[in-house]
Amino acid sequence: MSSIISGTGSYIPKEIQSNKVFLENEFYDTNHLPLEDNNEVIIEKFKKITGIEERRYLSDELDNSDIAAIAAKRAIKEADIDPESIDQIIVAHNFGNLVGNGKQTDMLPSIASKVKHLLGISNPNCVAYDIVFGCPGWIQGMIQADQFIQSGLASRCLVIGSETLSRIIDPNDRDSMIYADGAGACILEKGIKPEKGIMSYASQTFTLEESNYIFFGESNKKDSDDTFYLKMHGRKIYEFALNKVPSAMKLALEKSGIPIEKVKKILIHQANEKMDEAIIKRFYRLFKTKVPDGIMPMSINKLGNSSVATVPTLLDLILNKKLDEHQISEGDAIILASVGAGMNINALVYQY
Amino acid sequence: MSSIISGTGSYIPKEIQSNKVFLENEFYDTNHLPLEDNNEVIIEKFKKITGIEERRYLSDELDNSDIAAIAAKRAIKEADIDPESIDQIIVAHNFGNLVGNGKQTDMLPSIASKVKHLLGISNPNCVAYDIVFGCPGWIQGMIQADQFIQSGLASRCLVIGSETLSRIIDPNDRDSMIYADGAGACILEKGIKPEKGIMSYASQTFTLEESNYIFFGESNKKDSDDTFYLKMHGRKIYEFALNKVPSAMKLALEKSGIPIEKVKKILIHQANEKMDEAIIKRFYRLFKTKVPDGIMPMSINKLGNSSVATVPTLLDLILNKKLDEHQISEGDAIILASVGAGMNINALVYQY
Repeated sequence: MSSIISGTGSYIPKEIQSNKVFLENEFYDTNHLPLEDNNEVIIEKFKKITGIEERRYLSDELDNSDIAAIAAKRAIKEADIDPESIDQIIVAHNFGNLVGNGKQTDMLPSIASKVKHLLGISNPNCVAYDIVFGCPGWIQGMIQADQFIQSGLASRCLVIGSETLSRIIDPNDRDSMIYADGAGACILEKGIKPEKGIMSYASQTFTLEESNYIFFGESNKKDSDDTFYLKMHGRKIYEFALNKVPSAMKLALEKSGIPIEKVKKILIHQANEKMDEAIIKRFYRLFKTKVPDGIMPMSINKLGNSSVATVPTLLDLILNKKLDEHQISEGDAIILASVGAGMNINALVYQY
Repeated sequence: MSSIISGTGSYIPKEIQSNKVFLENEFYDTNHLPLEDNNEVIIEKFKKITGIEERRYLSDELDNSDIAAIAAKRAIKEADIDPESIDQIIVAHNFGNLVGNGKQTDMLPSIASKVKHLLGISNPNCVAYDIVFGCPGWIQGMIQADQFIQSGLASRCLVIGSETLSRIIDPNDRDSMIYADGAGACILEKGIKPEKGIMSYASQTFTLEESNYIFFGESNKKDSDDTFYLKMHGRKIYEFALNKVPSAMKLALEKSGIPIEKVKKILIHQANEKMDEAIIKRFYRLFKTKVPDGIMPMSINKLGNSSVATVPTLLDLILNKKLDEHQISEGDAIILASVGAGMNINALVYQY
């Protein structure tokens, strides 16, 4: 008996921010020195590496929990279920609702409780909690939901990834151009056919040297106030991801018993186009196989990196035929994989 | 096969804050009006209801993740295990590490990743994540750990509750006198005897009217800056807890099949002495039984309410014979129960 996805939903903010919005930013390096290149050059290089042309920012009147609830409603509608029948609501995020001076994390109550409130669910046995696991948080929420379904604690779970990174980025750090806002959700429930649904997964946490690769730190601009922002050591992350993600994906696939040829799509956390391509290349090298055409759907060029939201949003876009060149058909195996703050990695094999 | 607790640990901050430290505070009500009573009277009333004489605050040089790691080390030592053999590190909290301007939540990486780093654990298959579930977060972490152990995903988990509420309280709100800092941890692992260990549990989330009973809000003092603080509607919580907690405890106990007479201790979240006493009274009324003497160990009078940390700290104090009048012996059944932001409730039955 496997757990199956019976509905997906996402919320893509309406506000489009092209790379041009960064033309006037003052960018500094981590030693507080101004970057040598002018912003046009910086942006051009940035686009080449990350693939990002534009990203979406949430409008001021909405909170993270609001868009989490919108994505959830869409998933519930698609699954055509009674919301009162949900046993667990799991929300992955890293910054909660950003409130107050704009940089305080409100998760009191949890984002999952706020979502449950917005959905108007009255059943007290629908247990709502948040998970914090960096960008791989949504996939980890899916793994936890599957565990609860396997053990009999739950029959139906709502798993959401929702983040508003635009509200916690340093305007003086060029890395900030990567980040975006968004929410994705799905309904995971008890299936009846063993060959359909979640087949296997793998998760890892690296914290010896790696725990500060993505961190909460001060602005690149000297003598800024003592506000903390989302920060990363990009080069280290790139190397780490290349070394560790392919083997975790291989581990998950081997557990499933599904041959590599049956994998039709790999949905990887939209962190950086070049990095994602390199990961896939190395993954197939582990199987001594060429990378199949069209194996890796991408949304980063238009949507940026919305952390926990990228994978469920990408899945929702494909299943709802909004990425023309990509389809998932009955019998296809897919891999969902992510890497991010922790440093955490996970991979999940799903068969349609 | 049940999951057993093989070690416990806690960290109680050294800095004792008596009720006297609040003598000079300017207290206002939620309409921004000064309280009518003078502070001596306010404090006396406060002590009568909550039972709190003093509480502990963490010293400035330590973060929440630091004390989480100290409690964890003690639990690991007591369990006499190799830290590298831990499969999951689960940390419950609600405010992460409070940094920057003192009110920003740092959970990047997660507190669990920070703890794993501080413990120096290199095993990448030791997966570390945070759970946000209000004050009942630590018990919920124990429930999740038990699920993973039951399903075979994990054999040994480290579950921590750690919080520094002193850093997020409104000095102009009398409720702030309740809150404290602390950390508690335990090692939960696969047991061999079915009659020993976690026997059953129940969890509930109420969000229709209740989701804002405990919330993140502005100061009671008018024209303060736009900083948000931990806030609550005390009267509503009191009534809610009295109505809902006893039945959740009963549900958990019934699932275990253990008769009420075999319950030797009930460790309840240290929120408020009068409230806890009323909950226990109503719980026993459901069984038409008198409340047994000494059934409910309390630490709130000296330690205050440290949210997720109260229950594991209380358990650690008893097992290490630091609460003289309370012991737990072979064969005893105990109930752990909590209520808090969400609003969430849970109860867990454990047999020694």
